[in-house]
Amino acid sequence: MDIEGNTGLQLRSLIKKSGELEISLVNVATPEPAENEVVVRVQAAPINPSDLGLLVGAADMTTAKASGTPALPVITAAVPEAGMRAMSGRIDESMPVGNEGAGVIIRTGSSEAARALMGRTVAVIGGAMYSQYRTMKIAECLPLPEGITPAEGASCFVNPLTSLGMVETMRREGHKALVHTAAASNLGQMLNKICLKDGIGLVNIVRSAEQAELLRTIGAKHIVDSTAPSFVDDLTAALIETGATLAFYAIGGGKLAGQILSCMEAAINKTAKVYSRYGSNVHKQVYIYGGLDPRPIELVRSFGMMWGVGGWLLFPFLQKIGAADGARLRARVVAELKTTFASRYTQVVSLQEALQLSHIAVYNKRATGEKYLINPNKGA
Amino acid sequence: MDIEGNTGLQLRSLIKKSGELEISLVNVATPEPAENEVVVRVQAAPINPSDLGLLVGAADMTTAKASGTPALPVITAAVPEAGMRAMSGRIDESMPVGNEGAGVIIRTGSSEAARALMGRTVAVIGGAMYSQYRTMKIAECLPLPEGITPAEGASCFVNPLTSLGMVETMRREGHKALVHTAAASNLGQMLNKICLKDGIGLVNIVRSAEQAELLRTIGAKHIVDSTAPSFVDDLTAALIETGATLAFYAIGGGKLAGQILSCMEAAINKTAKVYSRYGSNVHKQVYIYGGLDPRPIELVRSFGMMWGVGGWLLFPFLQKIGAADGARLRARVVAELKTTFASRYTQVVSLQEALQLSHIAVYNKRATGEKYLINPNKGA
Repeated sequence: MDIEGNTGLQLRSLIKKSGELEISLVNVATPEPAENEVVVRVQAAPINPSDLGLLVGAADMTTAKASGTPALPVITAAVPEAGMRAMSGRIDESMPVGNEGAGVIIRTGSSEAARALMGRTVAVIGGAMYSQYRTMKIAECLPLPEGITPAEGASCFVNPLTSLGMVETMRREGHKALVHTAAASNLGQMLNKICLKDGIGLVNIVRSAEQAELLRTIGAKHIVDSTAPSFVDDLTAALIETGATLAFYAIGGGKLAGQILSCMEAAINKTAKVYSRYGSNVHKQVYIYGGLDPRPIELVRSFGMMWGVGGWLLFPFLQKIGAADGARLRARVVAELKTTFASRYTQVVSLQEALQLSHIAVYNKRATGEKYLINPNKGA
Repeated sequence: MDIEGNTGLQLRSLIKKSGELEISLVNVATPEPAENEVVVRVQAAPINPSDLGLLVGAADMTTAKASGTPALPVITAAVPEAGMRAMSGRIDESMPVGNEGAGVIIRTGSSEAARALMGRTVAVIGGAMYSQYRTMKIAECLPLPEGITPAEGASCFVNPLTSLGMVETMRREGHKALVHTAAASNLGQMLNKICLKDGIGLVNIVRSAEQAELLRTIGAKHIVDSTAPSFVDDLTAALIETGATLAFYAIGGGKLAGQILSCMEAAINKTAKVYSRYGSNVHKQVYIYGGLDPRPIELVRSFGMMWGVGGWLLFPFLQKIGAADGARLRARVVAELKTTFASRYTQVVSLQEALQLSHIAVYNKRATGEKYLINPNKGA
């Protein structure tokens, strides 16, 4: 049969028991859409930090080698023994990659709701988006308004819903302003746009003068550089100004989470009247939403007893707030897709190009400002 | 005037700017009770770990010296420079001590509710209980049933409400069983009695074979010794058996909080079917409710993203649950004061005896099994 999207290439990541990572492209059949399903021709899927965790896993990419053919390239790399333990759950399983993306519906199931979507551009979250074609439930598709391209709609979920989720968490847990680390990232810039629009205080913690400058150009008001000698004083001053008692911490390890809590406590105590040996009576919270830094978290307790540190993940958060509030957040993303939630990409690559060592070296750095978009149908 | 309780002795703790702790007894006038107030002759007040924090603060008690007179002894001790920073909120302020206690009402205000309490034995929480007389609001007094002595009612609040608060927190936050460290303490024994009575799984972490034996004699079912080489395996096995995903950690610093989370994650994953690189989807929580160990908290993250560590304090907890639920917990304490919530004391001392170096050396060790009761009117 010669139906478009009958089969298509799909990117796979495999970690073998022998300690080797293999990234490859495989040809897979596209499942026929059931009654309430559609087939999406994927034309844009971003490489987010959360995708890299699955794509390269614990592999040491300085050992990466290219083989295969131009049409079906293969990348292999060694996984250090220490890293293999964390990989135990996925050993010898060929895993598709790509949390989110966008494309055009080219075939539909028999239901009226499915047929109504024929030809529409939709954003999709559901994994395996580094594929040429994906059969999806219609409930997993977010139809985009006329005039939005797949590239513009490719990042509708992870960064927009994470940044909106941070603001929503702030409101639900009774805080009035926010702290964000790795603040110059794509996500951090988005969070600045939301907070500026909604009039919410946001303290941006960056790691260089360049990152501070980047945030200044988009209008960020409170920027502190954690590499500056005056960091603790700068952060405390910004916390006094904003009243922020909730922080989202991208990196995970080290002493920063505890430092943020200590500076919050110091800021609160600037206005405290009565001595309490338990510290202030204001709850201070740090949520860790990434794990780039594998070092232990070290909390030097100088922030009283009203505090919490914990993990924060988008999907459990969306589950907690329920379908109606989730739909409200998604509607805002679509409405502001060309403004607040616009993503910028530095490269658009095909599946084959995504498996070139020169590109991997760039996107795997996870550097602020570098962002890749895969178009699985580029040149196809 | 020669009215009983017109004046009385009160224990005071003072940390001077010069870096010296001074514990002394002062004679203070008893405020006349207002309409809805009463005067309590305090006859029993326990020395809880939370009282020692205020009583000796950051002082180095190996430097303690006795002076003054037998009737009005004075203890002085040096506060190390490093400790002075944490004391900054209380410098040169003479602070009364003693969170809770019990006694008999010897004078009342004019309201009917106040007069109805004349002669009653009441438990009181309200600070400054290491005093011969305390003028209290009637709302701060918990009338005890006939046949309960002040000594029996002295510890109605801190340990009983803390242990009940742990179980209540477990229920409210959706966990089904508990972990407790320092499990052989007075509080830990109480928690065992509650959990045995209510049919709740409780994993007791102790630090010696003697403590394990002590808990076994009161019927504790799950006991693991953190000094045993098999600790991690023992703890994981007990977590699998009980399904505990909430821990209360008395000590604070070090690696144990993170170890508990890791063992919880391992216990959950024994039954997990699907690989998730974010770890299990079960929230695991450790609350730290004490700070004996001043070392930093070190969390080696091997427990996924669904976790939290935070401070837990009785009074914010009671505020959060509200008056009606607080009254329900207090009613249970009174009803089970001679059984579940019975406290045992190894010594009953006067205010003067509480300021003897030989006694301070014992109660300041905070050793499991040693518990002091002060009777401010002993011999008076």
